Amino acid sequence: MLGRLLARLPRAPAGERWAGDDAAVLEVAPGRCVVSCDTAVAGVHADLGVLSEADLGWRAVAGALSDLAAMAAEPVGVLLGLTVPRDGAPEAVLEGAVACAEAHGVPVVGGDLSEAPVVTLCVSVVGRTATAFGPVGRDGARPGDWLALTGPVGAAAAGLRVLREAGTRDGRLDPNRGGCAPGEEPPGAAWADLVRAHRRPRARLAEGLAAGRAGVRAMVDVSDGLALDLHRLADASGVGVVLWDVPVVPGARFEEALGGGEDYELVMATADLARLRAGFARAGLPEPLVVGRVVADPDHRTWRGEPLPRAGYEHGRAQGPAGSA
Amino acid sequence: MLGRLLARLPRAPAGERWAGDDAAVLEVAPGRCVVSCDTAVAGVHADLGVLSEADLGWRAVAGALSDLAAMAAEPVGVLLGLTVPRDGAPEAVLEGAVACAEAHGVPVVGGDLSEAPVVTLCVSVVGRTATAFGPVGRDGARPGDWLALTGPVGAAAAGLRVLREAGTRDGRLDPNRGGCAPGEEPPGAAWADLVRAHRRPRARLAEGLAAGRAGVRAMVDVSDGLALDLHRLADASGVGVVLWDVPVVPGARFEEALGGGEDYELVMATADLARLRAGFARAGLPEPLVVGRVVADPDHRTWRGEPLPRAGYEHGRAQGPAGSA
Repeated sequence: MLGRLLARLPRAPAGERWAGDDAAVLEVAPGRCVVSCDTAVAGVHADLGVLSEADLGWRAVAGALSDLAAMAAEPVGVLLGLTVPRDGAPEAVLEGAVACAEAHGVPVVGGDLSEAPVVTLCVSVVGRTATAFGPVGRDGARPGDWLALTGPVGAAAAGLRVLREAGTRDGRLDPNRGGCAPGEEPPGAAWADLVRAHRRPRARLAEGLAAGRAGVRAMVDVSDGLALDLHRLADASGVGVVLWDVPVVPGARFEEALGGGEDYELVMATADLARLRAGFARAGLPEPLVVGRVVADPDHRTWRGEPLPRAGYEHGRAQGPAGSA
Repeated sequence: MLGRLLARLPRAPAGERWAGDDAAVLEVAPGRCVVSCDTAVAGVHADLGVLSEADLGWRAVAGALSDLAAMAAEPVGVLLGLTVPRDGAPEAVLEGAVACAEAHGVPVVGGDLSEAPVVTLCVSVVGRTATAFGPVGRDGARPGDWLALTGPVGAAAAGLRVLREAGTRDGRLDPNRGGCAPGEEPPGAAWADLVRAHRRPRARLAEGLAAGRAGVRAMVDVSDGLALDLHRLADASGVGVVLWDVPVVPGARFEEALGGGEDYELVMATADLARLRAGFARAGLPEPLVVGRVVADPDHRTWRGEPLPRAGYEHGRAQGPAGSA
C-alpha cells in the first residue's frame, strides 16, 4: 500500500533504489552517514482538533529533518513508518509527509504501512556530513563561546494557541476571537504566520550547513523549548550559560518563546562570531541573533541574572531522553 | 527516557556518535548506504497472548535486519522508534530489541520514545553494501536462473501454531497438547526450535553477504511467505517461476512452509549454482536448497505444474505494498 502510494514519486537516480525492494539504497559518500528518527502520535504530538492528518505528517518529517540540520548534516532520504486504524486513510498523512520532504528537497525513499488503533508516523532520516566539516554535536561548547539563534522563537507555540482559541483546523481564523492578550493583538498576517509555523514548520537545513561551514562548536535545534534545549547543550558540553536575550516572534508571548518548542530554530555556540555572521551573509541567510554566552561553571545557568528554568517539552513520559537521536 | 535506557549500551567508536545528540553519526564509506524500516504493532504483528513484549522487540529488529540481508548489505546501525501507553513499560520491548541487535552484531545507535495508546516499534536499519558487489535487488532474475533457498521454511508459522495450541507464552509446552497432526508429531527438541523460530527469529545476514559475493542476480527474504515473496521477485523481474520443491522444516506443515512467512530465509536467483554453492561452503554456511527455476513467461508461475498461489501475508491492510523498503 505504501509502495503503491509512493509509486507516484520521482524515480531514484542511477545508483540509488528507493521504494519497491527489501530496502532502499542511497549514496552518502564521501562524508559520514547521519541518521535520526522521530515519532508523531495523533492526540499526543498533534492535536487533531486543530490540525489535519496532513499537518501531522508534515510536522513529523520537519522534526526529523531538523535533527539533521542541528548536526550540520544534509539529508539524503526519508523513511516513513506509518500506522493507521483499519478504517483510516493513510493518504492524508502521507501527502503531508511527502509535501514536507519535497519542500526540503529530500526524497521519500521507502517506508512501511501497518494497521494500529492509532495514527502514528515514525520518520527516519538519513543524511551525510560534508568532509570539510564534521557533524556538529551539542557537546562542543566551550567557555567564552557566543550563543546565537538562527531566528526569533515562539511562533509554533503561539500558532497552537491561536488555533485552539479560534477552534478551527483550517487556519481561517475569526478575527473577533483573539489569540493574544489585549494590547498585543497582532495583525492578520502575523496570525497566519504563527499558524503556519505550527502546522507547517521548516527545518533550518541551510542554516545548519552554514553554521557547520562557519565552524560552530556546538548546535542544537529548539524543538522542545529554547530554555530546555539550551540546558541540554550545556549539560552535554559540561558548561554554564548566560542568556540575556530571547527574541520573540511578533504575536508570540515571552513564555512561548522561552519554553514553547517546535520552532526548529537552531542555537549555535561559536568562538568566532564574525565568521558565523559572514557565513550566513554569504549564504543569503538572516543574521544570527546573539542571545548569550557560554561560561565555565556548569551550575551557572541564568536568564538576565535569574536561574534559567528548564521550561520545555519533556519527551516520552515523565522524563526526557538524553537525546532524540 | 530512551536515551537513558540506551546509555547502558557500549560507546560508539571514534568518528561515530550514537544516542545522546540530535542525530546519530555512522561510518558507511566506501560502499553505498542501504536503509529500511519495519513496524511491529502489538496485537497486529505480535500476538501478546503467546509472545512477550521482549519477543515483539526482537522480532521487529530481526525483520528490519532481514531486509538488509536480502539486499546483500551489512547493517551498521539500528534506530528504535518506540511508543508505549502512559502506564506501560518500554524496558521489556527495548530489552528484546537490543538483544536482537546484539545477537546480530549491530549497535542500536538511537531512537525515540513516545506515548501512544498501543505498543508500536518502528525499527529503521542503516547498512552498507560492499564495493565489490552492489546491492542485490529483487528485480534482477533472468530466464534460466536457478532459484535456491538458504534453508527450509515454515518454522515461524509452525511455532506460532504450537504456541497458540499450548496457550502459553513462556514457550514451555505441554507435550500432551500437540502442535502437529497425528503421524507427524515432532520430538520436543523440534518443538522448541519452532517456538524459537517464531519468538526469536534470526536474519540471514551472513547468507545474504555470501550470496552477494557469489554474484546472485536477485534476492528476497521469505518474510511474508515463500509463495508470495517468490511472486514478488517474479513481478519485479518480469519473469515466471517453476517451483518443484518446498523444503519444510521438521514439525511444520506444507501450507506453513508455502505461505507462513516470517522465516527470513532468503530466496536467491543465480545463473551460477556452482559458484553459489562454493561461496556458501567457503563461508561455512549450509548448502543452498535448489527449489526451482526462472522462466521467461511472466504469466507462468507454477508449483509442480499447478498455478502457484499468492499465499502469504499481505502487509498493511487490504493489499500489500510494492515493497517494504
